[in-house]
Amino acid sequence: HHLGMVGLGKMGGGMRDRVRQAGLQVTGYDRDPDVTDVESLEALVAALPTPRAVWVMVPSGPVTHRVVSELADLLEPGDLLVDGGNSKWTEDEDHAQQLAANGIRFVDCGVSGGVWGLEAGYGLMCGGAPEDVERMLPVFDALRPEGPREEGFVHAGAVGAGHYAKMVHNGIEYGLMQSYAEGYELLLAKGIVTDETGCFKAWTRGTVVRSWLLDLLVRALESDPGLEGIEGYVDDSGEGRWTVQEAVENGVPAPVISTALFSRFSSRQPDSPAMKAVAALRNQFGGHAVHT
Amino acid sequence: HHLGMVGLGKMGGGMRDRVRQAGLQVTGYDRDPDVTDVESLEALVAALPTPRAVWVMVPSGPVTHRVVSELADLLEPGDLLVDGGNSKWTEDEDHAQQLAANGIRFVDCGVSGGVWGLEAGYGLMCGGAPEDVERMLPVFDALRPEGPREEGFVHAGAVGAGHYAKMVHNGIEYGLMQSYAEGYELLLAKGIVTDETGCFKAWTRGTVVRSWLLDLLVRALESDPGLEGIEGYVDDSGEGRWTVQEAVENGVPAPVISTALFSRFSSRQPDSPAMKAVAALRNQFGGHAVHT
Amino acid sequence: HHLGMVGLGKMGGGMRDRVRQAGLQVTGYDRDPDVTDVESLEALVAALPTPRAVWVMVPSGPVTHRVVSELADLLEPGDLLVDGGNSKWTEDEDHAQQLAANGIRFVDCGVSGGVWGLEAGYGLMCGGAPEDVERMLPVFDALRPEGPREEGFVHAGAVGAGHYAKMVHNGIEYGLMQSYAEGYELLLAKGIVTDETGCFKAWTRGTVVRSWLLDLLVRALESDPGLEGIEGYVDDSGEGRWTVQEAVENGVPAPVISTALFSRFSSRQPDSPAMKAVAALRNQFGGHAVHT
Amino acid sequence: HHLGMVGLGKMGGGMRDRVRQAGLQVTGYDRDPDVTDVESLEALVAALPTPRAVWVMVPSGPVTHRVVSELADLLEPGDLLVDGGNSKWTEDEDHAQQLAANGIRFVDCGVSGGVWGLEAGYGLMCGGAPEDVERMLPVFDALRPEGPREEGFVHAGAVGAGHYAKMVHNGIEYGLMQSYAEGYELLLAKGIVTDETGCFKAWTRGTVVRSWLLDLLVRALESDPGLEGIEGYVDDSGEGRWTVQEAVENGVPAPVISTALFSRFSSRQPDSPAMKAVAALRNQFGGHAVHT
Repeated sequence: HHLGMVGLGKMGGGMRDRVRQAGLQVTGYDRDPDVTDVESLEALVAALPTPRAVWVMVPSGPVTHRVVSELADLLEPGDLLVDGGNSKWTEDEDHAQQLAANGIRFVDCGVSGGVWGLEAGYGLMCGGAPEDVERMLPVFDALRPEGPREEGFVHAGAVGAGHYAKMVHNGIEYGLMQSYAEGYELLLAKGIVTDETGCFKAWTRGTVVRSWLLDLLVRALESDPGLEGIEGYVDDSGEGRWTVQEAVENGVPAPVISTALFSRFSSRQPDSPAMKAVAALRNQFGGHAVHT
Repeated sequence: HHLGMVGLGKMGGGMRDRVRQAGLQVTGYDRDPDVTDVESLEALVAALPTPRAVWVMVPSGPVTHRVVSELADLLEPGDLLVDGGNSKWTEDEDHAQQLAANGIRFVDCGVSGGVWGLEAGYGLMCGGAPEDVERMLPVFDALRPEGPREEGFVHAGAVGAGHYAKMVHNGIEYGLMQSYAEGYELLLAKGIVTDETGCFKAWTRGTVVRSWLLDLLVRALESDPGLEGIEGYVDDSGEGRWTVQEAVENGVPAPVISTALFSRFSSRQPDSPAMKAVAALRNQFGGHAVHT
Repeated sequence: HHLGMVGLGKMGGGMRDRVRQAGLQVTGYDRDPDVTDVESLEALVAALPTPRAVWVMVPSGPVTHRVVSELADLLEPGDLLVDGGNSKWTEDEDHAQQLAANGIRFVDCGVSGGVWGLEAGYGLMCGGAPEDVERMLPVFDALRPEGPREEGFVHAGAVGAGHYAKMVHNGIEYGLMQSYAEGYELLLAKGIVTDETGCFKAWTRGTVVRSWLLDLLVRALESDPGLEGIEGYVDDSGEGRWTVQEAVENGVPAPVISTALFSRFSSRQPDSPAMKAVAALRNQFGGHAVHT
Repeated sequence: HHLGMVGLGKMGGGMRDRVRQAGLQVTGYDRDPDVTDVESLEALVAALPTPRAVWVMVPSGPVTHRVVSELADLLEPGDLLVDGGNSKWTEDEDHAQQLAANGIRFVDCGVSGGVWGLEAGYGLMCGGAPEDVERMLPVFDALRPEGPREEGFVHAGAVGAGHYAKMVHNGIEYGLMQSYAEGYELLLAKGIVTDETGCFKAWTRGTVVRSWLLDLLVRALESDPGLEGIEGYVDDSGEGRWTVQEAVENGVPAPVISTALFSRFSSRQPDSPAMKAVAALRNQFGGHAVHT
């Protein structure tokens, strides 16, 4: 196996390294000359044996569209493209059709694990035709964590199923993080627990709430007790929004995930128009003072 | 009828006026010499014919406890005290027992309407023994809005029921205000509706969402388009908290009212500890940048 | 003015009557021969003086698309079509372009008021070009409630703004209804307020929560105390979903409206897959009994 | 060390075994003659060397109150009682004072880990005086998981801090479980992921959402795909309620944890009074059909 990898950032770069460590050959391409193995996409394609396998690991949206379009022209019938970025699952079918027009196969693959994946392995959820997934198994096995394959990898369904699974995974992640965060704030506010970092740390073994996210929260609290150096401003990168919109579309109650998403929106507002309106109303009916 | 009124602030002062306008006699007492009719609680009690009726309209909590205690000593068997403030319903039984020890009757009465009640009348929900409520009917009729008695007044049940009804009323109010506020913010954010004040105003007649709160929101928007002069900082005065705690105690789902309450809490935080924790977590697993 | 009206159901039928009562002429078309004035859309178009004005009041989605398409072929340059149904605002631009290709003007108009509008008037929010809105003012004035025009009508912006305003109106409505409903359930569950219908009725005058929806809830409670004859199963017709999806799209926190929507979803589930999973988890870690 | 253990149910029984496996001596008492080591509390006290240490592991509330009261009479000055049950943190101070009146020391200890703790160890959070906690360290070390003490044990603060920490732990747990559950339901509803059990299993290694609860969910799904044998009916045992009430009391936004709690309440309602009211309202204003 000789894999092409497009996009060598935090994720793609680590993945190149992990696949190489597993003994497979990888040629990577990135716009950044400091990290790329070849000078261009064309050079990447030229460097790979046929039938080629190219893993695309670039920002979702326009950048992914562009790279897929370029590769649709550069690759040849029988080649295979894996989109491992955080694309919206609805885009997979478009990409698959665009590639299929040139006889190129497509697999979408949600990748979880963040910057820790290089060492711990990446959790993988992919969608596509069985023979295409089969063909990529050596790469998937290289990327995924040690242990039984089915504990770090799933062929979730047809094209789109991988990114759908990853979207839901991230939606769940929003809820998990907010749950720990609310508990953290309550401990702080009450003050009866005098060692909140120690308390979270004591939950990392044996308790019902133990998890990798908890381990990371402890790590953050130990490096910056009270999280003094961090502002309570939280971005979102799309999957949480899509999860809520899918829940709404499918008539599925998702009050926890949506609340977690809305808490992020609120965290980014220096002043809330909605709460201005509530303050104005209280002032109107009760003469309650407002802050100005 | 000759009513004693203790507390002549925004609410109590207006209520004294409204009862007088109805042709009943009222003697009021307030610590503020500019508004009081008599010099002391003792003088108030001395000025009233027996059996006396005294309406207490002071801040809930310690101030109400003190006034009730003092009147428990000053009043005589057969007198009646009405607590019209925003006391927690659980305090009514204590007050009733304290007064009953001296043969004094007690009625709790939730009062709604704010600063507009003087002109429009006050919505009343009371709790107590039927004969005590009956005795106060002329005062209740003077205070409540024009129209059928049952559309602005209810004998909700035994002692405590009046304040319980008022608590739930206010809990509902939290949800109503937040609903309008979320809609307002969405209109602003989208911008497709170019005249959001006009839009809210157009809802005041004929639509399903027409209400008094909507009228007040239009009033606020017309006097300060964009609510530029108001910060999105919203206090709470207890009834919303009690409503949520009662819902929890009684196993009643109250996601909307509790969410409205939590939105107020959030509005008062310059920086959210919970969202610091979420930001820290995202940084830990994905290397996502944090604001510092 | 001589208006054409397509769709004479609960809403369209009442609107035809109200416009006629205002002294304007209306010719209506409906598939139902019992209510229609003419035999076909073609006959409707033939019956109207030019330039024509046709108000479409049919179910949103495919039915509206079809009627708009047919009228795009039947109407002539200079004619005007108003879509008064509950179309999604994103469809307005499509309809406008489709009609504009044949020189036909388009106005979208959100209509609120339900079955009560015939008597009380309909709240109207419209989007479109100023000259088109101007041209329809006599019809808008006939439909809207008595009183100042701006309290029952708004020209909210360009094409799409009317339905957008109506969408937000309905989103707010979801929150308002859920707020009253949660308060109602708490009163019932606690039982300290012995007359919950009387309590709600007493809120209809003077209180902060008075509204038209409250009046309707009292009406429902008086006709069926305890709401014995009604199952807690609540449908939704789209606008609430769109509101939440718009909030998500625009980064606007809408926890109350979304929670109200999710409560409707839950109300329709005989058994919740999510809660099965929670029950299974409790059983797994704690040996807690499950219901089977 | 020779520990007395009162209550030998699912938790207490496993804890007795684990402490014994660590080489410490334990005498247990339970009402159930099949599991008890001695015939009575008196016999238990008689069997223990002084100063005694007795771990109480019985249902919180009245049963715990009774056992503490009985031991307050049976134990002697210098003895120490640990309440390891799920008592509300506010009760700890009462128990401590009741015991202190007889010279008996008190430590509260939240215990997590469920039926798995016997093998994996129990996560421990305790509150009390440093010398009392110190004295119990050999027992704590026997109970907690392998590994560094601070990863499975914390001295969280003074009396009450242990149960407070456990309460927050459980509140977080509610949010975590609901997060996974919402994601599970969305996967099921959409159907694009054809192997939802495999998908959850693939998340157990490498992904951001990996956790012990996830492992258990996979276990449940593997033993009963589709969770056919489980009804979506979820009890609660108090800590979630207390967490929400504490959040409200302390002005801490906890929308996710409260929503998770309310979802449990809803899961137990065959028919929701609140949703009856919403259905009634929709019928009133729009003539929308209701289910009866």
